[in-house]
Amino acid sequence: MTTIEKLTELFKKFPGIGPRQAHRFVYYLLTRSQQHNDDLAKLIGLLRTTVTECTACHRFFEMEGRIDTQLCDIDRDPHRDRTLLMVVSRDVDLESVEKSGAYKGLYFVLGGSVPILTEKPEERIRQKELLETIRQRAANGLREIILAMNVTPEGDHTADYLAQILVPMLGGGIKISRLGRGVSTGSELEYSDSDTLRFALQNRG
Amino acid sequence: MTTIEKLTELFKKFPGIGPRQAHRFVYYLLTRSQQHNDDLAKLIGLLRTTVTECTACHRFFEMEGRIDTQLCDIDRDPHRDRTLLMVVSRDVDLESVEKSGAYKGLYFVLGGSVPILTEKPEERIRQKELLETIRQRAANGLREIILAMNVTPEGDHTADYLAQILVPMLGGGIKISRLGRGVSTGSELEYSDSDTLRFALQNRG
Amino acid sequence: MTTIEKLTELFKKFPGIGPRQAHRFVYYLLTRSQQHNDDLAKLIGLLRTTVTECTACHRFFEMEGRIDTQLCDIDRDPHRDRTLLMVVSRDVDLESVEKSGAYKGLYFVLGGSVPILTEKPEERIRQKELLETIRQRAANGLREIILAMNVTPEGDHTADYLAQILVPMLGGGIKISRLGRGVSTGSELEYSDSDTLRFALQNRG
Amino acid sequence: MTTIEKLTELFKKFPGIGPRQAHRFVYYLLTRSQQHNDDLAKLIGLLRTTVTECTACHRFFEMEGRIDTQLCDIDRDPHRDRTLLMVVSRDVDLESVEKSGAYKGLYFVLGGSVPILTEKPEERIRQKELLETIRQRAANGLREIILAMNVTPEGDHTADYLAQILVPMLGGGIKISRLGRGVSTGSELEYSDSDTLRFALQNRG
Repeated sequence: MTTIEKLTELFKKFPGIGPRQAHRFVYYLLTRSQQHNDDLAKLIGLLRTTVTECTACHRFFEMEGRIDTQLCDIDRDPHRDRTLLMVVSRDVDLESVEKSGAYKGLYFVLGGSVPILTEKPEERIRQKELLETIRQRAANGLREIILAMNVTPEGDHTADYLAQILVPMLGGGIKISRLGRGVSTGSELEYSDSDTLRFALQNRG
Repeated sequence: MTTIEKLTELFKKFPGIGPRQAHRFVYYLLTRSQQHNDDLAKLIGLLRTTVTECTACHRFFEMEGRIDTQLCDIDRDPHRDRTLLMVVSRDVDLESVEKSGAYKGLYFVLGGSVPILTEKPEERIRQKELLETIRQRAANGLREIILAMNVTPEGDHTADYLAQILVPMLGGGIKISRLGRGVSTGSELEYSDSDTLRFALQNRG
Repeated sequence: MTTIEKLTELFKKFPGIGPRQAHRFVYYLLTRSQQHNDDLAKLIGLLRTTVTECTACHRFFEMEGRIDTQLCDIDRDPHRDRTLLMVVSRDVDLESVEKSGAYKGLYFVLGGSVPILTEKPEERIRQKELLETIRQRAANGLREIILAMNVTPEGDHTADYLAQILVPMLGGGIKISRLGRGVSTGSELEYSDSDTLRFALQNRG
Repeated sequence: MTTIEKLTELFKKFPGIGPRQAHRFVYYLLTRSQQHNDDLAKLIGLLRTTVTECTACHRFFEMEGRIDTQLCDIDRDPHRDRTLLMVVSRDVDLESVEKSGAYKGLYFVLGGSVPILTEKPEERIRQKELLETIRQRAANGLREIILAMNVTPEGDHTADYLAQILVPMLGGGIKISRLGRGVSTGSELEYSDSDTLRFALQNRG
């Protein structure tokens, strides 16, 4: 394989990229300066050494030269509410909630979700790490776990799967909640499903 | 204008229909039987005489031969909860809520919504009729008005406009509520806006 | 079934219309005047009596009060070139070619096309009428038959099917041609298939 | 800026990539192995040294270790027809024509096209190099130049611009042609524009 072919193959595996766009990426780089391509190559090579996984919430964060910590800025922040733990599937979900400014507790990133009918659900998500984190935090004032999954069949199934494990384990001492359902920005009643309308009526106010 | 041209012109004004599809409708009818076209013509001609506007909620309903009533089946139903009045923009919104089976009160169809910056909002919706209906129902046990508009700028503006009129008029005796906001079926956290996430956190449970 | 339901059912069968839009058509008509709906009904009822099929080319045309002819304006026009016969699948194809102003011969509308693997191809198109028309025109100076089908698998198959019948029947006395292939308006080389590029190279000039 | 932010900025400039997908690319790389990222970085860094521009046709090609040539495999191939020169806008156009297998001549890649109303058209394309190439090839048996641009306003304008320069320069000794127009794969008559139908009729056969 030529360099163009090898590079096209790697770009084809990028999320959402087909063969034609992968090919176009290579031609794009061919028309950039050597300096641009060297910069890009250097950042890609360094990425995994400057960005690391937080040992508490498991999200990726920039070390920014620090070598004294494995904790991200949220977990290091003494002003975050340690009685709340929001469990999300992915880093992008955490970022979306942070952007809203509506949540001041801590997070746990599962690193995935549990598909319906999967055989080994415990291998799809950071299950062992989640249970260990909850055990530690339970001894340090944790009062509520928010299962914040997508409102999709796979997201709902993941939340159900976790609730099934957590409810017996926690025995009522810690509340397990889910995000409130209702009409969301952009919802039109004509196109809203019955579940959403039912929740929207229950939560009216 | 020929018959084909005249008919194309009328179909072009149907909601969501452009010139090409209007033209195709005419050719479709040309290949149907005379019986089919006569049936269609008869139903169109009769539509406004067999379907009438309910004098209470203003939605369209089928008379089905009855001449003794101007009330639709919901308003005639003694089991509906007359302490609740849900205000919706259009018939399709009412149908969507009915299909959910989650609501047992009465309705009022505004017949439209109030665009932002419109000069005569009272001409866009059945405002006079709504106020008259509320006055009558207030004297007959009405306890809550649910402003159930789309979660769009125009829908929000319509609800704000109505609340501004109703709050001083009702003086606290009747609750004015809105549909609960939150994540709806299909919502993904990554793509959810901050407002929706904030409501979803407030309404968690 | 109610009038609304019956009318929705009929609109659902219109080309390209789903249940939701069919329903919307009914509500649209409910908000029109009785006069509008009567006009629409009258045109639909009259359509098949004022528009008839040309006995020569089989396209639909407006009688416009004439009772002395069953021939459309093209077939009545003495200036059209009677040595050319273009065979098209549908009326809309004929209209598209007429709009281009590039063709001055006569037409024959097949009324459909022949799907691949269909069992009785002769029932899908006006085959008998086409052969009879060609026989008559062959005795009156016809020199070329243009098989003008869509460049789709079904269109190509229809043209192949007709050529297979016509070539032995005409025995070389009358030319059988097809539309020229090449790059068309909007074509981008990057997205053009090999067949199109091959024809475009052959027909370059 | 952090490494994630810097890398996101670079990916945002990739063709067709918005901020969200750029961000996703970074997370994708965070979950790859260091080996994968090193391989990718190395290929990107090497790209412009292993791939070079052919001095004859100006397309990009892989050196594959060779240091004795600046000519791509097409220009080195003694079996290609040197009486034909196809002028294309971009490498991808050349690849599309090669894939068709229908052309055995040589190419010239303009490196762009000439927008309508641009002030300095000669800076948008390799104009000087094209004229020099044509001069040299004219002395070596060149008989035809095929202006193979997209059938878009900008493509047509580029071909017109080049023809305007080449016709007086070549004085009839060398033919200047364009790709044949007509119906292309997938064309439906109903949606074909008048130009395409006119060419399809002229080129019928």
